[in-house]
Amino acid sequence: MKQVIVVRKDIKMSKGKTAAQVAHASLGSYKNADSKKVEKWENTGYAKVVLKIDTLDDLIELKNQVIINKVPYFLVTDAGRTQLPTSTITCLGIGPDEDEIIDKLTNDLKLL
Amino acid sequence: MKQVIVVRKDIKMSKGKTAAQVAHASLGSYKNADSKKVEKWENTGYAKVVLKIDTLDDLIELKNQVIINKVPYFLVTDAGRTQLPTSTITCLGIGPDEDEIIDKLTNDLKLL
Repeated sequence: MKQVIVVRKDIKMSKGKTAAQVAHASLGSYKNADSKKVEKWENTGYAKVVLKIDTLDDLIELKNQVIINKVPYFLVTDAGRTQLPTSTITCLGIGPDEDEIIDKLTNDLKLL
Repeated sequence: MKQVIVVRKDIKMSKGKTAAQVAHASLGSYKNADSKKVEKWENTGYAKVVLKIDTLDDLIELKNQVIINKVPYFLVTDAGRTQLPTSTITCLGIGPDEDEIIDKLTNDLKLL
């Protein structure tokens, strides 16, 4: 079991801003997962991996695949009060779910 | 209401590694908070701020102050399988709690 957070690399965010957005995605997707998945994930010590993706279009396409595969997710839209324009989609939390299904969805993405 | 995550700046972590550690701290501290605080925090859209701290000693001293003030927290220790030595303390999640009490504890820290 693991959770993956996928961050857009076509927008500019500081390390701290990126971390806050990733934490947002992680918590949101955790809250959308059913308790059985969460319990299994707990046994892995809440394994998390942060990946990067080229464009917003790629991120939305990934989100659609996640929905088709019935994996819990959370898409983060930043209010844009600080570093970004209003309502910027920044990242996508995926899972927790089985490694196999998460890997199938995110296999081609590199570590942030 | 807000949650703050304080990251050590005396250790070297990539953007993705930092983000994963911060997400860990955020989720852990959220799980340690009582439901009343979580509910109030939900109304702020889960406001999160990521700050930096000079040394491990400073982080531990901050953790002690957090405990004295009865604020929920979670200290993250990385297993050290990738970028860090075994059992490295990386960051501290604080809250959610009232802005006033969080600010009192972290007032002197800068944004990551």
